[in-house]
Amino acid sequence: MTDVARTRAEDCVRAMWSRDAASQALGMRVVEVRPGYAQVAMAVRADMTNGHGICHGGLIFALADSAFAFACNSHGGKTVAAGATIDFLAPAHAGDELLATAIERSRSRRTGLYDVAVANGAGTVVALFRGRSHRIGDNPCS
Amino acid sequence: MTDVARTRAEDCVRAMWSRDAASQALGMRVVEVRPGYAQVAMAVRADMTNGHGICHGGLIFALADSAFAFACNSHGGKTVAAGATIDFLAPAHAGDELLATAIERSRSRRTGLYDVAVANGAGTVVALFRGRSHRIGDNPCS
Amino acid sequence: MTDVARTRAEDCVRAMWSRDAASQALGMRVVEVRPGYAQVAMAVRADMTNGHGICHGGLIFALADSAFAFACNSHGGKTVAAGATIDFLAPAHAGDELLATAIERSRSRRTGLYDVAVANGAGTVVALFRGRSHRIGDNPCS
Amino acid sequence: MTDVARTRAEDCVRAMWSRDAASQALGMRVVEVRPGYAQVAMAVRADMTNGHGICHGGLIFALADSAFAFACNSHGGKTVAAGATIDFLAPAHAGDELLATAIERSRSRRTGLYDVAVANGAGTVVALFRGRSHRIGDNPCS
Repeated sequence: MTDVARTRAEDCVRAMWSRDAASQALGMRVVEVRPGYAQVAMAVRADMTNGHGICHGGLIFALADSAFAFACNSHGGKTVAAGATIDFLAPAHAGDELLATAIERSRSRRTGLYDVAVANGAGTVVALFRGRSHRIGDNPCS
Repeated sequence: MTDVARTRAEDCVRAMWSRDAASQALGMRVVEVRPGYAQVAMAVRADMTNGHGICHGGLIFALADSAFAFACNSHGGKTVAAGATIDFLAPAHAGDELLATAIERSRSRRTGLYDVAVANGAGTVVALFRGRSHRIGDNPCS
Repeated sequence: MTDVARTRAEDCVRAMWSRDAASQALGMRVVEVRPGYAQVAMAVRADMTNGHGICHGGLIFALADSAFAFACNSHGGKTVAAGATIDFLAPAHAGDELLATAIERSRSRRTGLYDVAVANGAGTVVALFRGRSHRIGDNPCS
Repeated sequence: MTDVARTRAEDCVRAMWSRDAASQALGMRVVEVRPGYAQVAMAVRADMTNGHGICHGGLIFALADSAFAFACNSHGGKTVAAGATIDFLAPAHAGDELLATAIERSRSRRTGLYDVAVANGAGTVVALFRGRSHRIGDNPCS
């Protein structure tokens, strides 16, 4: 990885992040970005719990999805999620600090595959996510 | 379906809903519940859009996941999501009124499979979700 | 659906089938084809069972995958599987006659989503499959 | 990992393999087994190709599924596949020697999650598979 690639990845994600009202409203925080890689953190708030008193699965998915989006847009271009699979392995609770780590497993001109692990502060994996990306534009990030 | 089963489904979901801070904070609204079936609506707010200016996929997933949760808990007992797959078919935008409809495809003593379609106000399907449930408790809903 | 569309679907699948050594070797049989729809049957042979004495999941998947392939190639063009999800709901046994029914849930210029149900002779659903297709060529089937 | 655990894993898989008519008929070969891990090889035969002239996706899935089955039964007990997701990244051709490597990502008393990568002889990954296991019996393998 060159410094140029890393700087571009950071610039692309910074531009996306500045417009990403949803990730901001959920209190997410970008921890690190490299080409094909992103780490995003989120604290589970009381208003993120569901009827069973644990973190709503949709918000764990949202955290993983944001890490996935930053990883797959780190190369420039405009790339969206075509779909994803998630497996919930352990519950998360209000007060937990979750960390989602997205890595690139495959990338061709139009499509990509990314694995995201979501862990709590104790390092327990609460969910594994696999996202499929689809590149819909070639313009550099801006 | 008996009236008893339908009333129990409504009671179970009402009890879950009253504690479901996440679905409430996201502005969801339960439209209809029957045994093995639930419809939930959500308007896409400006603070639900992502860096591409469209509804964050995680929040579309969250809507589908809530409909799934209500459908799989409509029989009583305590049932959680083990995992899910989602395919995004069309973007959703701020102002869209989304409707998620969950139907039961299979149910055994411990596990279940549910299909959820999320459509916008024009009837366009924006996402298809398939959720796998796992029953972890036998107590009636309360 | 016009007769023209149906005839083209049948012609496309007939051409694919004639070259599909794998589906033939597994004893599959195309039951019906329409645009975006295919039904394929397969009897579970003794040499299709696994170490637990039930039909190998890979062969149930293969049956569903063939029905999916015929449904997504029924419009002409050259379309391949990008991926799929399968849930196994009940075991199949040697001697069972399985029937896979593929329906189109979504189709755009390049991608499509298909649901396949695999049932045994008693009508019990043994697996639900969801396949994602990717169109890689525009030439008519031949 | 103790020698005892490894020997038990090998014994369990040897017992399963001896009854696994399907994997044998497809020409598979167990390369290595450890607790929570299995490698299985398969050569793509001419009768494994589909109507596009490439290896039928169902047979790539079957190879991954066998590696998954051996990995999740390596601890003893009787464990079956509840479902799986596969993404096809590159085509495989007649004559290719495919190698599936299954690793355990998560395991609780009843359920487990396994990742399988299928690569060709050149090391190109042709498919990524994620399988969900369900333990249905506690008796030791035999």
